[in-house]
Parts: sequence; structure tokens; C-alpha cells
Amino acid sequence: MNKKMISKRIGKLLMMEAAMLLLPVIVALYYKEPTKNIMAFIIPALLTGTVGFIMNLPKSTYDRFYTREGLVIISVSWLLMSFFGGLPLVMEGSYETLIDSFFEISSGFTTTGASVATNVEALPNSILFWRSFTHLVGGMGVLVFALAITPKLKKDEIHLMKAEVPGPVFGKVVAKLGDTARLLYIIYLAMTAVLILLLWIAGMPFFDSMLHAFGTAGTGGFGIKNTSVGYYNSPIIEYILSIGMIVFGVNFNLYYLFLIGKVKEFFKSEELRWYLGFITAAIILIVLNVYEETGVMRSFRDALFTVSSLITTTGYSTVDYDTWPLFSEVILLVLMFIGGMAGSTAGGIKVSRIGTMIKSGFSEVKRAKNPDRVVNVIFDEEVVDNKRLRSISNYLFLYALVFTTLVLLVSYQTHTFDTAFSAVAATFNNIGPGLGLVGPTGSYAALPQFSKFVLSIGMIAGRLEILPVLILFSPKTWKKI
Amino acid sequence: MNKKMISKRIGKLLMMEAAMLLLPVIVALYYKEPTKNIMAFIIPALLTGTVGFIMNLPKSTYDRFYTREGLVIISVSWLLMSFFGGLPLVMEGSYETLIDSFFEISSGFTTTGASVATNVEALPNSILFWRSFTHLVGGMGVLVFALAITPKLKKDEIHLMKAEVPGPVFGKVVAKLGDTARLLYIIYLAMTAVLILLLWIAGMPFFDSMLHAFGTAGTGGFGIKNTSVGYYNSPIIEYILSIGMIVFGVNFNLYYLFLIGKVKEFFKSEELRWYLGFITAAIILIVLNVYEETGVMRSFRDALFTVSSLITTTGYSTVDYDTWPLFSEVILLVLMFIGGMAGSTAGGIKVSRIGTMIKSGFSEVKRAKNPDRVVNVIFDEEVVDNKRLRSISNYLFLYALVFTTLVLLVSYQTHTFDTAFSAVAATFNNIGPGLGLVGPTGSYAALPQFSKFVLSIGMIAGRLEILPVLILFSPKTWKKI
Repeated sequence: MNKKMISKRIGKLLMMEAAMLLLPVIVALYYKEPTKNIMAFIIPALLTGTVGFIMNLPKSTYDRFYTREGLVIISVSWLLMSFFGGLPLVMEGSYETLIDSFFEISSGFTTTGASVATNVEALPNSILFWRSFTHLVGGMGVLVFALAITPKLKKDEIHLMKAEVPGPVFGKVVAKLGDTARLLYIIYLAMTAVLILLLWIAGMPFFDSMLHAFGTAGTGGFGIKNTSVGYYNSPIIEYILSIGMIVFGVNFNLYYLFLIGKVKEFFKSEELRWYLGFITAAIILIVLNVYEETGVMRSFRDALFTVSSLITTTGYSTVDYDTWPLFSEVILLVLMFIGGMAGSTAGGIKVSRIGTMIKSGFSEVKRAKNPDRVVNVIFDEEVVDNKRLRSISNYLFLYALVFTTLVLLVSYQTHTFDTAFSAVAATFNNIGPGLGLVGPTGSYAALPQFSKFVLSIGMIAGRLEILPVLILFSPKTWKKI
Repeated sequence: MNKKMISKRIGKLLMMEAAMLLLPVIVALYYKEPTKNIMAFIIPALLTGTVGFIMNLPKSTYDRFYTREGLVIISVSWLLMSFFGGLPLVMEGSYETLIDSFFEISSGFTTTGASVATNVEALPNSILFWRSFTHLVGGMGVLVFALAITPKLKKDEIHLMKAEVPGPVFGKVVAKLGDTARLLYIIYLAMTAVLILLLWIAGMPFFDSMLHAFGTAGTGGFGIKNTSVGYYNSPIIEYILSIGMIVFGVNFNLYYLFLIGKVKEFFKSEELRWYLGFITAAIILIVLNVYEETGVMRSFRDALFTVSSLITTTGYSTVDYDTWPLFSEVILLVLMFIGGMAGSTAGGIKVSRIGTMIKSGFSEVKRAKNPDRVVNVIFDEEVVDNKRLRSISNYLFLYALVFTTLVLLVSYQTHTFDTAFSAVAATFNNIGPGLGLVGPTGSYAALPQFSKFVLSIGMIAGRLEILPVLILFSPKTWKKI
């Protein structure tokens, strides 16, 4: 374990976070917020910068990196950045405990969007900006992280990425990784800018447009109104955001292909077809289930928004879907597990895994009918070989184990099963709101501190696809080699 | 598809069921029940026998069997036997619809133990006997079925078994399979006899002892009192049944090894250690969670009984665990999914699969730390190779897909998530009682007919490990070759 190197990298990241913490100061100055709010960002910025500087001090003699170091950097930096990023919330005074602020900013960086705030409208603009800004930064970090674990990359690149990309860093990496990553960021930021513009034209105030675009880009979903997007009560805004969420739930490598002119390959993507298929099927089923109460047009608008919001694990809401019939709620719950496409900013299990799993499962029916036949599973024009299948199934095993453990831990202080279950589903899959107590009209504020801490770790574990966090718990990781 | 052959085999089975349907007549005569009850068994026996006779008529010219035929025979016979076996319940009058009776006897043959009866104490003894007797028969069928899909058997034997063993048949098979299967049945019936004796000595009436032993042997769990085993309020009876359930949840191949003198191998079984480990851990956690209310001794007794009952998917109850804290309920829910050991009469995912899954999942942590290292997963002294892992993971994929589909279908007419979720968990895993409306003090009676039918199919799919039932839905199965 090259601890010096790990310390240096994390130190550099914290110094970058310190710089980011100065952005909300501009917002505070613009809105003439009290000096207290300005200090609430400047002091944590200084603290974070100092800690980062100290961690960056040791001179590392040898510069080699292994996957292990890369994974530790990723998870530790995400933990520390959430901790330091949460300090302004406590200093400003709107958040009471360090666990509350840790929860909120973990939720931000992991683009979950679960909040412990009970009255977001009372929060100062600087805090609102910082919360949403962590979505934007988290989304960028996730994009590179997803790139790093995408199997299509060449082996050297993967090693490099795993070591180099500890979350939301976007300077050094780009230089080394070259055009791919840089182009991804340009696409990401350009799409965010377009979204800000569209929302603004549609009549949303500029500040609100910016924050909602940040939340959509990262598929995060922090609301800045108590009734989330429902507040604006505007069909146009809802349609723009619906499409926006779906767009940010698509694999960014596809946009890359699109941009370099491979338009055909874009539309040939099997994962894209599954993704759009799930969305369409869910909307149809929900509309059929609820249209008698609200009418076809209104139920379509609500279903489109809610389905887009939950499958992309964004978590914005326009209606209290917790009042929908159970059938629709179960469909939403299924979407929450499916998640967006691999290589997007969305969370969840990911469409590619679900699609492969369905195809592979049904291949067993063919095999059972004729045990001597060779049955190949093909996903996105590639044969799913045993190695790929092992990697997917082991991921899903770990997913199920961690999920169960989280539900067990949260159930210790909770009273109803659907709250415990959906709180874990909504945080571990990086969505935000769940059902019951933590539904779209509720908040995580009412949960005990221990549960909030458990769910924070769950958000980070879910965001980093479990392994980097699990590795921290393995004693052997910390042994010297 | 050799349809004639399939018809013949199923016909033979139905004739056997017709013979079995005459057993409750003896009970009815002994307890001097009204003629109506006697006719309620004789008429269905004649009908079932006639249908079986007709299905057995066609002369099959060629006698070759493929796995496909075997799987179809298994699932169709389980469906038909549940249908015909349910007729007496409707004819006697205690059950109102054919779906109710189909549910009840599916629940019997699949050794689930979920009941639509709201007042079992009002049922005549002949009906009570028949319900519990289907557990005993179902358990025998499952044992042979499990033997057939056990990977340790030689390849010829598996083919033979898959074709030969369509559920609860125990004449012809034994002759062909030789000593192994015969010995399994002897062990099974001998253990059931011992259990009857022990319960009787402990003070339970002989009739009750017999029925409870049937329910324990098949890990079925039909109660004959409204408060299930709680009715007897006897610590000795509860301890006997607890141990009994644990014993019947053990892989019967281990008893076979034990009997032929390989005692060491019995205790060396890794699956056995996982199984007992889960039981011990669950009891400790539940006692720690509830002892303050009921005292250590009482909570140990309740926890032992409930844990044994749910992990073995029996479903007897002595307390209303639905009133326990959520933490304990979640532990019970986890046990309901784990299930008993492979090769036992218990349902659920099975301990061997769960153990392999946990080991395989964590092997990924090692692999992530050092991508170039070869990491082997070993379960029960054998390397889990890619083929075995593929088979397990594909099973779990299908399990998750069918489970989700069932919850979705049931949620259409249900109002609370924990009822829908736990109703499916309790039937698909062949347990019986769930939580909420269908908890230990509730009944499936209140569910709509459509949900009951869906859950019946779910019970059969779960019992037959999904594939034989899924194969029926595949259009290609029915094509001629």
C-alpha cells in the first residue's frame, strides 16, 4: 500500500474542493447575504485547503500505482470531500449536526438528492447553490469513474484511470487520457448549458434554472422548493426536465460516437433500446393504472416526469406518487432498481446489467430443454462470456448482500418495512426520495442519526459500485506489501 | 415433443392420486363424519382415476425421453394433481371456489402451507388429514426431484431422473434408481414416524401428532388450529417441532452418508455449517432484540421456533412475529429467502446457493485489489467453476425476475407493499405465512381470486425451481421435433 501516494492525491483533491467552496461566496455576495453565510464558506475552504496542503506534503519516492491504491483513493476522497463539503451547512446554522451535513453533501456528490432539510425554501441561496453544485461536480466524477470501469477500454487505460481518477477531478486526468475524457466533459457541460437556457426561456428564474440543470445533469435531484418541480406547475418546464433527465441517463460514450460522426452506432445500441423500452412500458402501464382519476393528458405528463425521474435516479417530483395505486408504485420501485445506462451519471443497477441478466436467465430455459446445445448470450453485439457473466453476477451478489445489510441496519430504528426498504432503495441506488416516510413529500430528517450515517455510506457505496468502499473494510488492504 | 408419452406418465400419476384420495375416506369413517364428506372424496377419486386412465390409454411407439419431456411432465402433473386434489375441498363445502381449493392443495403439494381457510378448527378431520397428507406426499416428490437436479449424480442418472420423476411418484422410480432413492424414502418415512411418536409422547393427541409430523416432514406447515402450534402452549412440543423442522431442512444425502457409515463426511459438510450458522446467528440477534419484553428463556423458545420454522420454510407459528420489532422481522424475511439446504424438503433459494453467492461475491474484492491474481471460489471442497457459477447466477436472475413479476401482479389488487411483497416471498419460497395481512394470524382468504391464482402458480414455480414452469410458457416447447 503506497500510503504516501494516496495521501498526496487526496490532498490535491481537497485543495480543489477548497477552491470550489469559494464559488458560493460569490452567490452570497450577489444576493447580499449576511457575513455569517460568507464566513460559513470561507472558513471551511481554508480548513479544507490546509488539510489538503498537509496531505500533499510528503514526498513519494516511487510513483507506481496499483488498482488497490486507485480504489482506496476513490472511496476515501469521496468520504472526505463529503465531510468537508458539509461543514458550511453546519456553520451557516441550517443543519444541526455533522451527520446531517455529511448526509446532505454525500447525497450531493453521489448525485442522490436525498435531503434532511425539512424546509428547503428557507435555506439561503449560497447553500442552495453549493448543494446543487455538488451534483454537477459529482456527475463529472462519475462520468470519468464509469469510463474507468467500462470494459471496452484498453487494459492500460483502465489501470491508469483507476489510479488517476479519484472522483471529481478534471485537470490532470484529461491531459493523460486525452481526447475521450475531455470531449465527455465538453458534452456534459454543453448539455448542461443548453438545459439552463431552455429552462430559463420556459420561464424559470435564472438562478433556479441553473440549479435545476445542475441537478438534472448529475441526475441528482436536490429540489430548491418544498414541492420540488411541482412548485412551478408548468407543463413546458416539466417536459423539458423529463427529456433532460432521460438524456442524462444515456451512456455518454454514445454521445461521443454521435459527435465523431458514428450516428449509426448510436442508434444500434441495444442498451439504449432496452432503456427506452423500460421507460415506454412503465409510462403506458402507469397511465393505464391512473388515468381514470386525472385524465389521460395529465396522467401522461405525470407518468413521463416520474418515470424519467426515477429510472434515471434523479429524484425530482411533480406529484406525490406515494398516493398512486400500489401497482404503479411497484413499477416505480422496479425502475429505481434498474437505474440508467452504464456510463451515464445515473445510478441503480444499470440497464446493461439488467438486460444481460434477463437474457442470460432466459438462456437457461433453452439450455434446460436441450442440455447438449451450446447457448450463447449476446448483448450489444458481443457474446457475454463466462468472465463477463461472472463479473456481473458477482456484482449483483454483492449488491444484494450490501442492500440486505443496509435494510437490516436501518430497520433497527425504523418502524415500517416500506420506509426502511425504500429508504435504502432510494439512497443505495442514488435516487433521493423513496416511499412512505421518505417519499416525495417527506424528508430524511425524521430518521435517527445512526440511520442517516448508514444511508450516507450506502449512497457512496452505491455510487462507486460497491467495491471501492468494501475494500476499505478488508483488513488486508491496509497491510504493507 | 413426445406428447403421448407425457400423457401416459401423467395419467399414471393421476391414478395414484385417485388411490390416495381414498385415504381420507378412512379418516371420515373413523370419525363418523356425514356421508357428504365421504362422497366429497370418493367422487373426485373416481373422476381423477378416470381422467388418469384415459390419459394412460394411448400406445406410445417409441420410448425415448428427453429433459424437455421430463420437465413438462413435472410441472403439468403438479398443476393437475393440485387441481384434482382440491376438488374434495369444494365438494365438502368448506371452500367456496375452485381457485380457493386449487390454492390450498397447491400449497399442500408444494409444502408451502399458506391457507385460505379462515377457521381451520371448523374443518372436518378428513379434510384436515388430506391437506396435511399432501405435505407428506409433496415432500417425497421434492426429495426425488432434488436428487434429480443434484449435480453430484452421474449424467445418465440425471437424465433418467428428470424423465422419470414427475413429482410425487414413488414406485417405479425407486426400482430404476435403486438403493439411493429407496433409502431416502425409508429415512424420510422413518423420521416422520419417530416425530409422530415423540409428539404423541409429549402429550399431543395422536391425530394432531400425525398431521403435524406430516407438515414438519414436508416442511409444509398447514396448521390444524387457528393459532397453529401456539394452541398447545407446550414448551416440549415446541422444542420437538423446532428440532424436527431443522432436521428436515438438512440435505437428505447427508443422512444417506450417515447411514452408510460416512459419519465424518456428514459433519464435514460446509453447507450444513452455513445452515446451522444462519440459524444460530438469527436466534441470537432476535433474542437480543426482544428479550427485554418477554425475558430470555421465553424469547429463546419463541426465536428458536420461529427461526426454525421460517428458514426451513415450514411456516408453523407459536407467536405473532408480526408484532416483533422491525429489525427482527427483517431478519425473519432474510431467512425466508435463504431457505433450507439443497436436497431437503425445504424451499427458498437454498443455503448452498446463498453460501456460494456470498463467497463468490467477496472473491471479487480480492480480484479488484489484484486484477492479475487467480482467485478460486471453493464451496464444500469443490471449486466453483464458471459453469456452476453460471447455473447459480442464472437461477438467481430468473428467481429475481419471476419474483418481481409476481409482486407486480399481486400489487394490482393489494393496497400495502409489505402485504404484496411478503405474500409473494411466503408463497414463492414455499413458506406459508408472511407479514401484514397474510401474517401468522392472518390468512390468504382476503386476497382477490386473481391474486390467489397468481400465488398458486408462484408456489409451484418456486417448488420446482422455476425452469419446469417457465418452459410451459415457451411456445417452442410445444413444437414437434
